[in-house]
Amino acid sequence: MNPFISLLLFLLPIISLFITTSVSGSPLKIPRLSPTGGTFVHGNYFANDQPKALSALDQNDFETFYYTQTLDHFNFRPDSFTTFQQRYLINSKYWGGSNVSAPILAYLGAEESIDTDLAIIGFLSENANQFQALQIFIEHRYYGKSIPFGSREEAFKNASTIGYFNSAQAIADYAEILIHVKKQLHAEDSPVIVIGGSYGGMLASWFRLKYPHVAVGALASSAPILYFDNIIPPEKGYYFIVTKDFQEASETCYQTIKKSWSVIDEIASKDGGLSILSKKFHTCSLLNNSSELKDYLKSVYARAAQYDSPPRYPVTVVCGGIDGASSGNDTLSKIFAGLVAYRGNRSCYVNQPGNLSETDIGWGWQTCSDMVIPISISNGTMFQPDLFDLEAYIKSCKAKYGVPPRPRWVTTYFGGHDIKLALHRFASNIIFSNGLRDPYSSGGVLEDISRTVVAVHAKNGSHCLDILRANHTTDPGWLVEQRKTEVHIIKGWLAKYYADLQAFK
Amino acid sequence: MNPFISLLLFLLPIISLFITTSVSGSPLKIPRLSPTGGTFVHGNYFANDQPKALSALDQNDFETFYYTQTLDHFNFRPDSFTTFQQRYLINSKYWGGSNVSAPILAYLGAEESIDTDLAIIGFLSENANQFQALQIFIEHRYYGKSIPFGSREEAFKNASTIGYFNSAQAIADYAEILIHVKKQLHAEDSPVIVIGGSYGGMLASWFRLKYPHVAVGALASSAPILYFDNIIPPEKGYYFIVTKDFQEASETCYQTIKKSWSVIDEIASKDGGLSILSKKFHTCSLLNNSSELKDYLKSVYARAAQYDSPPRYPVTVVCGGIDGASSGNDTLSKIFAGLVAYRGNRSCYVNQPGNLSETDIGWGWQTCSDMVIPISISNGTMFQPDLFDLEAYIKSCKAKYGVPPRPRWVTTYFGGHDIKLALHRFASNIIFSNGLRDPYSSGGVLEDISRTVVAVHAKNGSHCLDILRANHTTDPGWLVEQRKTEVHIIKGWLAKYYADLQAFK
Repeated sequence: MNPFISLLLFLLPIISLFITTSVSGSPLKIPRLSPTGGTFVHGNYFANDQPKALSALDQNDFETFYYTQTLDHFNFRPDSFTTFQQRYLINSKYWGGSNVSAPILAYLGAEESIDTDLAIIGFLSENANQFQALQIFIEHRYYGKSIPFGSREEAFKNASTIGYFNSAQAIADYAEILIHVKKQLHAEDSPVIVIGGSYGGMLASWFRLKYPHVAVGALASSAPILYFDNIIPPEKGYYFIVTKDFQEASETCYQTIKKSWSVIDEIASKDGGLSILSKKFHTCSLLNNSSELKDYLKSVYARAAQYDSPPRYPVTVVCGGIDGASSGNDTLSKIFAGLVAYRGNRSCYVNQPGNLSETDIGWGWQTCSDMVIPISISNGTMFQPDLFDLEAYIKSCKAKYGVPPRPRWVTTYFGGHDIKLALHRFASNIIFSNGLRDPYSSGGVLEDISRTVVAVHAKNGSHCLDILRANHTTDPGWLVEQRKTEVHIIKGWLAKYYADLQAFK
Repeated sequence: MNPFISLLLFLLPIISLFITTSVSGSPLKIPRLSPTGGTFVHGNYFANDQPKALSALDQNDFETFYYTQTLDHFNFRPDSFTTFQQRYLINSKYWGGSNVSAPILAYLGAEESIDTDLAIIGFLSENANQFQALQIFIEHRYYGKSIPFGSREEAFKNASTIGYFNSAQAIADYAEILIHVKKQLHAEDSPVIVIGGSYGGMLASWFRLKYPHVAVGALASSAPILYFDNIIPPEKGYYFIVTKDFQEASETCYQTIKKSWSVIDEIASKDGGLSILSKKFHTCSLLNNSSELKDYLKSVYARAAQYDSPPRYPVTVVCGGIDGASSGNDTLSKIFAGLVAYRGNRSCYVNQPGNLSETDIGWGWQTCSDMVIPISISNGTMFQPDLFDLEAYIKSCKAKYGVPPRPRWVTTYFGGHDIKLALHRFASNIIFSNGLRDPYSSGGVLEDISRTVVAVHAKNGSHCLDILRANHTTDPGWLVEQRKTEVHIIKGWLAKYYADLQAFK
C-alpha cells in the first residue's frame, strides 16, 4: 500500500490516543510540530515531573487584552476588512518603563491556546526581572480565544473561512499588535525581542526577518525552518535522529525496536494474529490492522525522542523498560515493557477513545496549507521505510480541505535554500537554538550564519527545552549554560540597540 | 471648501489634460508617482528632446514570456488559487551564462505597462554588457498585459476583484518569477540585482528587504519610501521642493507664480471673470471655476520640477517664459507665457478632452489602498495652502471603491519610522538614489543607513534620472558620475557575493 495512504488510515486512532492524555491530564502542553507530516504527536506524558514555568500567583500578574485584528492584511477585498478579537496578555511587573525605553519580551504564540504557553514557557518570566522587561504573550489566530468569524464552527467551516489561517498572516498580526502596544505604552523606543518555540520559533525568526523595524532580535528555539522543500536530505531527517537517540541510549534497545516491526507484521499476517497483538498490547479496542499498533509505537518513540528531557529522559525510560524485561521474553513483550515504562500502568493502550484537540484540527490545516514539512522515514533508521510522497500528500489535502497546499511557499517567502549565502550579509540578531536530541533539530539552523545570526545548541538537549519551564535545581549544567548563553547574546543586542538609539535619535 | 473635496472636483479635467499628450504622443513615458495624492501628473512633455533607452533593434533582443501567477499569495481560500498570465521579457544577449553564475539585472515594473519601461529605462541595457548580465523586465500585476480575471473590465469591476492589487502581492509575484526564471536557466547561483524607479524603486528596496534570498541587492531610484504615515514633516514635502526649484531657478519667476493665485481668484470672483480667464489661457472649454485653472498650473509646475532634467531643464523653460514676457505685461500674461514656453504653441490649453489611461485608473486604486501618500501644500510654498486631510481622503476612497485605504499598512509591513535605527544593523545592499530637484526626494532616503545601505544623490538631479534613458553626449558630468557610482557600488556587492558563493557553497 502507498505509505502515505497507510499513514492516513491510521491517523485517527493515533491522534485519539494522545489526545486523551492531554484532555484529561495536566493543563501543561509542550510546543510541538507534527513529526509525521499530518500525524500529531502531542500531549504531555511527564507533566508531573516538570516544574511549571509560572505559579498561579505569577499568572495573576498577567492582564488580558483583545486587539481588533484585520482578517486579511494582504488584500483590500471587502472580506479582507473583516476583523476578529485577538488575545494577548501583558505582565508589566518587572518593566523598567517607557522613560528608559526598557525592553519588551514578546512570546509569539504557536499552534495552541496561549493559556498553554503561558503556563509552560519559562524564558520570559525567568528573565523579565534582569532585563527589566515587559512580558507579552500573543495568541496565534485561529487558536484559543482568537477565533475569526465569531466561532470555531464558522472559522473552520470551509476553505473560504479557514483560508486566512497561515504563517504570513500570523506574523502580520503580531506586527500590528506589537506596534499598537508600544504606542499605547508610549514605548516606541523600547526594543522588542520576539521569542518562540517549534513552529512558534519559526515564526520568531521569520518575524525578525520580515519585521526588523518591530523586533530588534529573535530567539527561535527548536525552529526547523529548513524542513521545507527538500532543503535537508530526507535520509538525515526526523526519524534519523529518533533512531540515533535510541541507539545512543542503548544498542540492544535499538536492535529490539528495529526487529519488532517485522515480528508484528508476521503475527498480524496469521489467522487471529490481530487478536493476539491486541491482547499482547492491552489495546483499548481490537486492532483493525497492524499499522494501528505500529504507528502508535512509532509515535511513542518519536515523542520520547523529541522531548527527551531531564530529569526523566523518556528515551532512557523506554529503553529501560525494553532492556529490563527478563531476557527470556520475546521481542514484543520487551516492546510492551518499554511502553508501560513510558506511559505507566494503564487499563489499556492503543486505540484510546478521544476527541480531536484544537491543535490537531488547527495544525492539520496548517500542514495542508503552508506548513508542508516533508518527513520521510528512510532506510537506515530503526523503522520501516515510509517515504514522503508529495503528490499523494497534495491529493489528500485537497480531498480534505478542497484546496491544495503550497509546498514551496515557505521557501519563496521566507527563504531557506543556501541560507548562509543569503543571510551572511543580511539580517542580524537571531538565535537559532536547538537540542540535538530533538528530531526536529535535523531541520534547524545548526551553524552560525554570521556574527549576529547564530546557532546555539545543546548536544543533550530536546525540543524547546531552553525556553520551556522555569529554571530548576534538577537542570543539568549544560542546560543552565545554554540559557545563560542566550541571555548573554540578547544582552549584547540590547546594548548595541541602546547605543544606536542614542546615536541616531 | 474642504481642500480635499475641491481637489477631487477638479481631478477629472486635469487628468484629461495630461492624458491627451501621452495617448497621442510618443510611446515614451516616465515612471511617476502622484504628486497630489490622487491627482495624476504624467504624460511626457519633452519626449522628443530625450534619447530613447533602446533602439527598436535592441528591443528585438527581448523575448516575451508569460508566467502562470498566483492571484493571492497570502491566503489559501479557493479564490486565492485563481491564476493569471503575468508578462516578463528577457534579454540574454550579454549574459555570461549559468556556468559562471553571471548576474541578472531585474527591472521591477511599476504603475504602467512594461512596454513603457522597456523603451525608456536605460540602466539595464547600458550596463548589461559590462556586467555580462541577463536582463529581465517584469510587468506589475493589473497593468499592461498582466491582467487577472481575463480582462481589464473584470479585473477592475469592484473591490472583490481589484482587491488583490497591491504592493505586497506584487513583490511576491516578482519573487516567484525570479525563482522560476533562475530555475529554468539553471542559474540558481546567479545573483539578482533588482532595479526600479519611483513606485518601482520602492518595490525594489522593499523586495531586497523582504526577499534577500532572491535578490542580493537593489537599486531604488527616486523611491519616496518615507512619504507615508507622516514620517516626514508635511511642510518639507513635495511642494516645498517644487517651490525651492523655482526659486533657485529665478526669484522673479517664483514671485510671479506666488502672486498669480490671488490674481486668478480675484478675476474669477468678478462677473464674467471665468470668461476672461478662459480667454486669457486659451482654455479648450470654458472654465467652470478658478480651481480648474489653478490645479492645471500647479500640475505644470509640479511636473516641470519633478522632471527638471537635462538638456532642457523644464523649470528653466517655464521661468524663461515667465521672466521673458515684456515687463509691461500683467501677472497672468507672464504665467501664460511660461505655460506656452513649456508646452509649446497649441490650439488650446486646460480642459483638454481625453480618456483615463490605465495608469490613471491603476494608480488611482493604489493610492486608495496601500499607497496613501499624504501630500500637503503648506504655508511657505509658492502655492495656496492645501493640507492633506486623512479623514476626508479615507471617506472619498471608500465612496469611490467601496473599501477604505490602509494608510498605516506600508509602515507596518515595510517600516519607515526611524529607518536608520531599524536598518543600521540589519539589511544590506540597497542604493537609494535621488535627484534633489525631484519633489519626491523629500520622501526619499538621503542619508546612508549603513555601509551597504546607502544614499546616492545628485543635487541637480530629477525624478529617476539615473536609471532613465541611455547615456547621452549631452549628459552633464554629475549625472555621468552618479551612474558610475551606482555601477561601482553594485560591482562591490557582486564581488562579495561571489566570494561568499565560493566560501559557503
